[in-house]
Amino acid sequence: MAAVLTPFEELALRSIIAVSVGALLYAVLLARQVLREPKGSGRSLQVWDAIRQGANAYLRQQFRSIAPLLGLLAVVLYLSAYAAEAPLSISLGRAGAFLMGAFFSASVGYLGMNMAVQGNIRTAHVAGRSFRDALRVSYRSGTVTGMLTDGLGLLGGTVIFMSYLTHAPEVLLGFGFGGTLLALFMRVGGGIYTKAADVGADLVGKIEKGIPEDDPRNAAVIADLVGDNVGDCAGMAADIFESYEVTMVSAMLLGLAIRPFDFKWIIFPLLVRAIGVLSTIAGTYCVALWPDSVTKENAFKAMDLSYDLSSAIPAVSFFFLAYYYVNDLRVFLATGVGIGLAISFNKLADYFTSPSRRPVDQIARSARTGAAPLLLSGLALGFESTVWTLLVIAATIVASVIFFTGAGPIFAMYGVALAGIGMLTLTGNNVSMDAFGPIADNAGGIGEMSGADSETREALAKLDAAGNTTKAVTKAIAIASAVIAAISLFASYAESIGLGGTGLNIADPLIFVGLLIGGSLPFLFSSISVRAVGRTASRIIEEVRRQFRIPGVMEGTTTPDYARVVAIVTSAAQRELIGLAILGIFTPIVVGLLLNEVALGAFLAGVILVGQLLAVFMANTGAAWDNAKKKIEDGYYGGKGSEEHKASVIGDTVGDPLKDTAGPALNPMIKVINLVSLLFAPAIIHLRGSPMVSSILALALIAVLVVVILRSKREASEMTEGETAAVAEKAK
Amino acid sequence: MAAVLTPFEELALRSIIAVSVGALLYAVLLARQVLREPKGSGRSLQVWDAIRQGANAYLRQQFRSIAPLLGLLAVVLYLSAYAAEAPLSISLGRAGAFLMGAFFSASVGYLGMNMAVQGNIRTAHVAGRSFRDALRVSYRSGTVTGMLTDGLGLLGGTVIFMSYLTHAPEVLLGFGFGGTLLALFMRVGGGIYTKAADVGADLVGKIEKGIPEDDPRNAAVIADLVGDNVGDCAGMAADIFESYEVTMVSAMLLGLAIRPFDFKWIIFPLLVRAIGVLSTIAGTYCVALWPDSVTKENAFKAMDLSYDLSSAIPAVSFFFLAYYYVNDLRVFLATGVGIGLAISFNKLADYFTSPSRRPVDQIARSARTGAAPLLLSGLALGFESTVWTLLVIAATIVASVIFFTGAGPIFAMYGVALAGIGMLTLTGNNVSMDAFGPIADNAGGIGEMSGADSETREALAKLDAAGNTTKAVTKAIAIASAVIAAISLFASYAESIGLGGTGLNIADPLIFVGLLIGGSLPFLFSSISVRAVGRTASRIIEEVRRQFRIPGVMEGTTTPDYARVVAIVTSAAQRELIGLAILGIFTPIVVGLLLNEVALGAFLAGVILVGQLLAVFMANTGAAWDNAKKKIEDGYYGGKGSEEHKASVIGDTVGDPLKDTAGPALNPMIKVINLVSLLFAPAIIHLRGSPMVSSILALALIAVLVVVILRSKREASEMTEGETAAVAEKAK
Repeated sequence: MAAVLTPFEELALRSIIAVSVGALLYAVLLARQVLREPKGSGRSLQVWDAIRQGANAYLRQQFRSIAPLLGLLAVVLYLSAYAAEAPLSISLGRAGAFLMGAFFSASVGYLGMNMAVQGNIRTAHVAGRSFRDALRVSYRSGTVTGMLTDGLGLLGGTVIFMSYLTHAPEVLLGFGFGGTLLALFMRVGGGIYTKAADVGADLVGKIEKGIPEDDPRNAAVIADLVGDNVGDCAGMAADIFESYEVTMVSAMLLGLAIRPFDFKWIIFPLLVRAIGVLSTIAGTYCVALWPDSVTKENAFKAMDLSYDLSSAIPAVSFFFLAYYYVNDLRVFLATGVGIGLAISFNKLADYFTSPSRRPVDQIARSARTGAAPLLLSGLALGFESTVWTLLVIAATIVASVIFFTGAGPIFAMYGVALAGIGMLTLTGNNVSMDAFGPIADNAGGIGEMSGADSETREALAKLDAAGNTTKAVTKAIAIASAVIAAISLFASYAESIGLGGTGLNIADPLIFVGLLIGGSLPFLFSSISVRAVGRTASRIIEEVRRQFRIPGVMEGTTTPDYARVVAIVTSAAQRELIGLAILGIFTPIVVGLLLNEVALGAFLAGVILVGQLLAVFMANTGAAWDNAKKKIEDGYYGGKGSEEHKASVIGDTVGDPLKDTAGPALNPMIKVINLVSLLFAPAIIHLRGSPMVSSILALALIAVLVVVILRSKREASEMTEGETAAVAEKAK
Repeated sequence: MAAVLTPFEELALRSIIAVSVGALLYAVLLARQVLREPKGSGRSLQVWDAIRQGANAYLRQQFRSIAPLLGLLAVVLYLSAYAAEAPLSISLGRAGAFLMGAFFSASVGYLGMNMAVQGNIRTAHVAGRSFRDALRVSYRSGTVTGMLTDGLGLLGGTVIFMSYLTHAPEVLLGFGFGGTLLALFMRVGGGIYTKAADVGADLVGKIEKGIPEDDPRNAAVIADLVGDNVGDCAGMAADIFESYEVTMVSAMLLGLAIRPFDFKWIIFPLLVRAIGVLSTIAGTYCVALWPDSVTKENAFKAMDLSYDLSSAIPAVSFFFLAYYYVNDLRVFLATGVGIGLAISFNKLADYFTSPSRRPVDQIARSARTGAAPLLLSGLALGFESTVWTLLVIAATIVASVIFFTGAGPIFAMYGVALAGIGMLTLTGNNVSMDAFGPIADNAGGIGEMSGADSETREALAKLDAAGNTTKAVTKAIAIASAVIAAISLFASYAESIGLGGTGLNIADPLIFVGLLIGGSLPFLFSSISVRAVGRTASRIIEEVRRQFRIPGVMEGTTTPDYARVVAIVTSAAQRELIGLAILGIFTPIVVGLLLNEVALGAFLAGVILVGQLLAVFMANTGAAWDNAKKKIEDGYYGGKGSEEHKASVIGDTVGDPLKDTAGPALNPMIKVINLVSLLFAPAIIHLRGSPMVSSILALALIAVLVVVILRSKREASEMTEGETAAVAEKAK
């Protein structure tokens, strides 16, 4: 039993803190480099300024509207620790860590998005100078977000651990919850915003008025561009930060639960992460340094090569770390499985959604007999893809069980958590590549609008193409890491409620009921979020139509009120996400109070199982429809404007809210539910001691949930002509 | 401990057998009544004859192709009991009961379908005479199937129990498995057949050639009509028979597992069923006897009134049975919950899928902005509907737990099984109403084709409208009963493997893996069955196109070769369903061998949870799209031929294979998997004693599964000319 740190461990932890601070400094350095670049001038700067203002207005509004909830939750967390008779330092620590996690997550989203906005305009400008410069500026803008993710996540986790040592779990949970809850807000809010604005702008502009996309007469055009930033940049960044943070928290929780206890189980994952940060710094910096032969034609190749460079460093060092420090090669194997998992998920996502592979080709081909066959083959593909991704996850768990044979279930689950650590070792690279996508995309848009010359446009188009590839790659890793983290949290939960001999026995009827209810929740969540997109879009449509009726707007002599549309979609998205957040926070507490804490464990298993299946289904089906459409637009099976193309547009439109709103929102949702359960299990057990109090509380929470659900249905039914139109769009 | 029957129990069991034989005799009586009616003559008789031949050819082919598999499985079942060192009487009994279950299920499907075919033509003919006669003939044709279901199910279960008493479980499992496996074949095969023929006929006929539906020049037109019979009649009948049988078997299994042991726990559900049979006979016979004020305008009202009459008898008698025989009112309460469950499911299905309710109205309205909004609102509706149905099931389990507080989990699960018994008390009425649907539908079709007068047509149209309502009502009960039966089987499984203290602890990593794999299986199954419809349809399309190229066919001077299309779709559907059956039978064995029997238990829970969610999702989404289309065709939101209508046709076409093939197939699938696990658990435990043998066996089974899955992905139709010809020859 090592309850104090060895001198080596002290040194290691201080080094890890140094590395994470280094990551942040590196982010500052890169940001300064990018900001030194010229922005250009004229029309593009005006557009850019409107986007920047809109995006910031959205995030400010978001932070303002959730601040009271965060404050309230911090108090509740303090009380929950207090009720469990934790010392003051821990109760305060938990509440503080919660706020810190939320603040970090918000910062990564906010700064990452602003960096992207700054990167857009500069990339567009320097693309006229050289392709390499454009690649450097856009990629490094993205890397800022990557390094913030790494640095803040590692810093927070390490500092909490050093401060609390064996008491760290209580506080780490707060940290994880803060980050995850914020990520839920950013993901869901951003997802609703971006799809609703997209659909709203297109429906009135392109379809009703017959004006081009991104036409400045359309009042929703700025909201649409803002949506790309708040959804693809801020939402994505907060989401990956949360995954990075929660995989770490769950590994540390399980590491602290291992008996006989030893700090090496916690310090090993932190060291792995620190090495990952250093590797990322080395790799990402090289992207713009590779010889012309690499970067000139193929931006993706440059990033890929950097990724390989980054990967080489950990592969070697993990081995030595496991061998010399932990004295246990099993942790090396488990971490290695995580890297294999990342690769497998990549390959699966690529196979099921790449336009050049057979599945998407089959979907595109089925458009020859109409929209229905295309839709059905997409559904069949999505159904199937869930099976293989789930088998890969199952294989990861089995591998971990085999490595830790005889060491007991906690060790095996710790191994699974290490796979999560391994998988996200190169989070910095992943985020860089992911953030690069929308930056390149927006730079291309700005280039178009500002009338750049053909050479510049060509360079920007090349960047954009590379961006599409990187997005798909990182999305798969985000889903996989969410599931692994959730499974680790679930294991922590089972450990924390001290099940003893009986375990989470789902043959017990009440516990089985918990499993059933948990399984239904992702369906409810998806239903509400799909409808939320439709409702929000309908609000935009009304406003854009109203503005088109103002004399001068359609003629282009009066500038439309962009800010008003931005404000409308901002407040609508806010309203929607509060309901979803309440669903995530209240449901586990109700299940715990009405059934019991063991049934709540089974509930978590149900949420994870079905959440994972639905998330993968929606992501892959949506991406496959999207790419089938792109394939047809590239001239296959009839090409643009054909009946086949019309069919594929229907598929793409159906897939959009699935893959960009409902699906990605399930990742943080699953983890919020797990963390809420972990945090409130002691309070639930305590409350169940007085059936009267717990019944009243449960009924009160149910009342709130019913209101939330009914509201989501009622507003749907009030959809006016324009409202339903919301979701419809490009199809015609 | 009562190991022998009391004289009262002897008498009760003999009475139950008498009742079930009475049900069969009543079926014979009704059949003779129907067959005495005139068939009419001329053109309609020709069409009818072709349908009859095609349908019978399909079923004969189906029985022929699965006979070897049944024989093989009977031997395997014999060996599996033998390996578990069961006495010869039990090993033989299990194999024999398996064959009996399969034979009963097949008979219900075969006879029910033939009765429907006989009923069609006669209903069409007597509709010219009086509406009451048409109602009588069509409803009584359906009642024959209902009484066969009741009589054979009750007879089989009771005879087995009387013969084996405490050893009955071993043998009952065989009986349940036989019925369920056959139902899987009939449901999947029929589902693929009916949808593929429908799509194939419409696509070439209506869309490519622009000729009306049911045009005799279309070579697939007979196959399409055959499909209605093999899917909606034979498939449905076998499926409900299986539900009736398995709810009974699972209640008996749990009744036998209760300690202290008492035969009353088994005899009570049998008595409940017998009372149900008598009530059904009384109620169904009255349908055509109600005064004109009831039957004249509203066929549904007549059926509904009969249902109420049938319900009144059990409600009273169950109470007395529970009070005086079982001396335990809890069993009355649990059975009553089942009736509440049936009502709740009805209401939910009605709310989510009825054209006059708000959800379908919203979907229809969203068609004004195109197909994509219509599709998305249908998906959101389907997602949401799963949540409420699942909560109703959860409430059923919780109610049972509350009734049997302190009596332990087996009692609670026995209560759940009793809910299944209560829910299916009036199966005879349900089947009568369900079979009535396609009979009325086909009678209408025959009336149209044979050029009946307008009064006759109007009477037939009224019948048809009533049929649409009854179908929706009974479908909901079929799904609910499947889940309840599966949960009871799952409980039996957990009991049978003797878990002791540790239970089905899903916090154990390997057991959690079992849950994950189980959850993914319904997705795989749905993916394969949706694709199977597409593949089979493509074979039909090719053939119909080929025949249209034959000179004279398009001109109507040469009769197309209907039999050839029937033969093609028959053999294609067969090929598809063998793969799916292998998936259902092999997967649980592989999971048991590779992981262990406890993980297999969690696997079952995963299959039930996700299977239920997907089945409800597909049923409700498909039905809602279908009814949204019908609503538009009734003149709302643009009416027939509008853009809205086109959008709704896309929705309907996407929904068809979901609601009529993939969704309904999940019901028997879930139970096949549970029964296979129950049957082979002892063998699996035995085999795992020698890791070498079990690994080799597992790998061999996996190899077969991989082949099945890969084959299902391969693109359509390499059926050679020779093969087609061979099948066509056989079918004649």
